[in-house]
Amino acid sequence: MTRPPLSPPTRLLCGPGPSNPDPRVLAAQQRPIVGHLDPTFHDALLELAELLGEVWRRPDGMSIALSATGTSGMEAGLAALIEPGDEVIVGVCGFFGARIVEIARRYGAEVIEVSVPFGQAVPNERLLAELGRHPGARLVAVVHAETSTGVAHPLAELAAAMAGSDALLFADCVTSLSGIPLEAGGWGVDYGYSCSQKCLGAPPGLSPVSLSPRALDRIAARRAPMPYSFDFELLRRYWIDRPATYHHTVPVLAYYALHEAVRLALEEGLETRWARHAEAGAHLQHELRERGFELLAEPEHQLPQLTAVCVPDGVDGKAVQAELLDRHGIEVGGGLGPSAPPIWRLGLMGYNATVETADRLLEAFDAVVARPRSASLSGGR
Amino acid sequence: MTRPPLSPPTRLLCGPGPSNPDPRVLAAQQRPIVGHLDPTFHDALLELAELLGEVWRRPDGMSIALSATGTSGMEAGLAALIEPGDEVIVGVCGFFGARIVEIARRYGAEVIEVSVPFGQAVPNERLLAELGRHPGARLVAVVHAETSTGVAHPLAELAAAMAGSDALLFADCVTSLSGIPLEAGGWGVDYGYSCSQKCLGAPPGLSPVSLSPRALDRIAARRAPMPYSFDFELLRRYWIDRPATYHHTVPVLAYYALHEAVRLALEEGLETRWARHAEAGAHLQHELRERGFELLAEPEHQLPQLTAVCVPDGVDGKAVQAELLDRHGIEVGGGLGPSAPPIWRLGLMGYNATVETADRLLEAFDAVVARPRSASLSGGR
Repeated sequence: MTRPPLSPPTRLLCGPGPSNPDPRVLAAQQRPIVGHLDPTFHDALLELAELLGEVWRRPDGMSIALSATGTSGMEAGLAALIEPGDEVIVGVCGFFGARIVEIARRYGAEVIEVSVPFGQAVPNERLLAELGRHPGARLVAVVHAETSTGVAHPLAELAAAMAGSDALLFADCVTSLSGIPLEAGGWGVDYGYSCSQKCLGAPPGLSPVSLSPRALDRIAARRAPMPYSFDFELLRRYWIDRPATYHHTVPVLAYYALHEAVRLALEEGLETRWARHAEAGAHLQHELRERGFELLAEPEHQLPQLTAVCVPDGVDGKAVQAELLDRHGIEVGGGLGPSAPPIWRLGLMGYNATVETADRLLEAFDAVVARPRSASLSGGR
Repeated sequence: MTRPPLSPPTRLLCGPGPSNPDPRVLAAQQRPIVGHLDPTFHDALLELAELLGEVWRRPDGMSIALSATGTSGMEAGLAALIEPGDEVIVGVCGFFGARIVEIARRYGAEVIEVSVPFGQAVPNERLLAELGRHPGARLVAVVHAETSTGVAHPLAELAAAMAGSDALLFADCVTSLSGIPLEAGGWGVDYGYSCSQKCLGAPPGLSPVSLSPRALDRIAARRAPMPYSFDFELLRRYWIDRPATYHHTVPVLAYYALHEAVRLALEEGLETRWARHAEAGAHLQHELRERGFELLAEPEHQLPQLTAVCVPDGVDGKAVQAELLDRHGIEVGGGLGPSAPPIWRLGLMGYNATVETADRLLEAFDAVVARPRSASLSGGR
């Protein structure tokens, strides 16, 4: 039986990711494909590693992109840095913190979980108190930008407070990289991982990661085997060493797109890009509050690029998502996982992080969602 | 510092992969991006699972594509099907069989290795004899098409001889899927994995895999944890169950390309496609032998889609590769790994599996490589 080709609809992607890539990034994917062992491609990979180091703000260590998703970027770091029986302190303020706990346990970690309700940030004091109680802990893991709630973690402060500790600092930067300030090297983040499809504005499929020199040392000294796909020693021999040693066949066209996305981010300038995300998010959040909507995140930890909006009582959140999608061609996210409160997740990331996109989203939102009944009374939070 | 965009050269990819994708497959990648949780994309994924079942010739079990490379497809199956201490019999006739051994050991397997020199196929009798000696073995693993040597494994015969055994049959089909006859369901292959970029003719980056019902049962019953990225229970809930449960953000555009590649393969018809690969490969191999070149693989196990040519004495194989690439824009592979003999690896896969491409390759080869001195004397092998 023959099937017709796919004919996907045109969407404005204002959910938790992917975001719409920059057209120049999509065009880069159409460049001629070469072999992954082509000398010109080796040069391109090495240049990409340098560019990624600039985006992560880490001149030393190793910054590369895994031929895998952000989820695998999380797993790769845990698999490489945890040995069975290791104590690992994990801050959990949403779905992705909980996933770190689950994966760390698969690799034999004894997890010390520090949890807060959805919408709050994990206080650094509580993480540091656990580190004091467990001085042998090997890793402290937090989510810099919790995609399930829109909450930012005060990562620079945590890193500063951990200076001198033997525990490594592990940070989920899936939604933060190039969207909010992040200085992996300067702050002292030992392992960070992200994805291609959010604030970097490339298609989904690759996971930029960044390792400190001491994270690399820890991996070189480990005794337990680690997954072959995530073996950073072997990945270094392929990405960085010359002549390169074959490890896997990289998705050449996806790397063209990521190279272009990272190049454009650096051309724009990270500070400018962070400011653009901040401006778009602040505008959206101001307008939503004006309309009487309540936001899930504590205001002092609200991310600009991801806004979780509480679905007002009596409103069918899923029906609103479906109508935005079907009638306006706009994707927004819902709550993630069975324990999520009823929320919409609105993303303004990468190429979409503009006041104009925010206004397009608000216009559709106004057409579909009735304002909360309390709005005229309280003016909202 | 700003960098210019990448400007990769145009190449005819006649190495071990990637091959040049069909232009229709590249065009599919440019279709509008949607979210991975978009209802239309869920439908597309489910349809892709059906199409993959047809390409694998497996109507039951589960056929999906991992958001990862073929190497990870190998690792996913080993990680899911091996528990520490399991006996695993592995046939090794080249680089990729050796890699199965290495990865199986990382997951705690006691590996019984059955090796032959490069160029030969592992005799099924030796594998079956080991299975007789190790009746508790959990897995027999072979490489259906050894990309490092151009050797085919008699997989149908092995599967038939293993009928009734409790051991699962595990097959590397990275270079075989849609290039030579393969009936995963009909023969009884319990776990097969492939890649997007060889005979399927899509860009690299995804790994089509196929599991039998009893492989799925084995995974459901396992006690040891497995990597989260490769957890087939969770992948089933995302790919097959409805409503889908989020597992990871799939590379949407790469799946558009794979869907189109698989759709075109089925539209062509698998038997027609196998015959096309057979014809192109036979032509190339005949012409090479006519010119006096020796082929590495035993003739009765020679793959059509991948031909390993012995570099004649006194010829600098690497220099030939460089000249083919630089002056003719044609990529061919060299030997893989430190133990490989001096060979060129010529691939005619997917869109490139035509007599016309073979002739283009031969023409460049004739311009660059002197015929072996013995050719005029012996006429070659």
